[in-house]
Amino acid sequence: MDCKVALAECNGNIDKAIDHLRKKGIATAKKRGSRATSQGQVQSYIHAGGKIGVLVEANCETDFTGKTEDFTNFVRDIAIQVAATNPVAIDRERVPEDVLEKEKEIYASQAKASGKPEKVLEKIVEGKLSKFFSEACLLEQPFVKNPDITVQDLLNALIAKTGENIVVRRFVRFQLGESDT
Amino acid sequence: MDCKVALAECNGNIDKAIDHLRKKGIATAKKRGSRATSQGQVQSYIHAGGKIGVLVEANCETDFTGKTEDFTNFVRDIAIQVAATNPVAIDRERVPEDVLEKEKEIYASQAKASGKPEKVLEKIVEGKLSKFFSEACLLEQPFVKNPDITVQDLLNALIAKTGENIVVRRFVRFQLGESDT
Repeated sequence: MDCKVALAECNGNIDKAIDHLRKKGIATAKKRGSRATSQGQVQSYIHAGGKIGVLVEANCETDFTGKTEDFTNFVRDIAIQVAATNPVAIDRERVPEDVLEKEKEIYASQAKASGKPEKVLEKIVEGKLSKFFSEACLLEQPFVKNPDITVQDLLNALIAKTGENIVVRRFVRFQLGESDT
Repeated sequence: MDCKVALAECNGNIDKAIDHLRKKGIATAKKRGSRATSQGQVQSYIHAGGKIGVLVEANCETDFTGKTEDFTNFVRDIAIQVAATNPVAIDRERVPEDVLEKEKEIYASQAKASGKPEKVLEKIVEGKLSKFFSEACLLEQPFVKNPDITVQDLLNALIAKTGENIVVRRFVRFQLGESDT
């Protein structure tokens, strides 16, 4: 399944095509999610003349897919995404516990300060946490090159197209002169 | 002080020139070692078509020096060095305690198995640890492009030439499919 086919099937309606790809992608991604990935690519992206640098490893199942243009473009897009957005982690499960606790504390005290009833406070904290995840987790972020989809959607579309399990395994981002984390 | 001057002063004798630069470099490096570094570059190096990737940050004192060809070449050389040799840490102080303990244990039990007297055993362990550091610590390694000098010598020569404090601040190396460390 690629974008052109999806577009044709949806009679050129881009929103419908993205929706189509997302649904197709999620279903396929779930099916492939358990398969082993040991191939792929390590790629880098250097921004602003060496002020920011990113290293990304993405894995797939076969050496063949790991060398395709689609896969190469995907890994490059991830590196650009990380340079631009500085995510905390790849997904919710990998946000460090201490970072999460700190966020929760801040939201709880903000909500309390609003003077609203207890029941509403919980909802406020939940809403703020959800927003935090969508900013801090690479896969939940809007894709910088097309904010109509998330990075997860981009990944799912590649999984659907290649028919392989694909994962963003790890990334690191150095910003010149930043304090140690 | 640059290589040409050193060569001229040493009448074209490369060994003497390197020696000259090393001595000069060490003296200058010690003088500059305490000065603040917040400028510099982040650079990457991708090896073997995306099987190995390295990200390096090196710092200097001024934006001007950080943009020079000499500095750029140095950071690139460090990235290539890390890709080729997979160092454990930048220097002895940054080798993780558990890694060091494990090495010491192995050397101690190897030495014990040799059946030599206690006094000699200590020397054997010391010798093996010293060899370990020269392989595991980036700055103690022979420079891959010129094994007659160490990476520290290369750094000292740049410090001497630029007149600035320069540090290799951090590096990371991803090898496709390696197990997590």
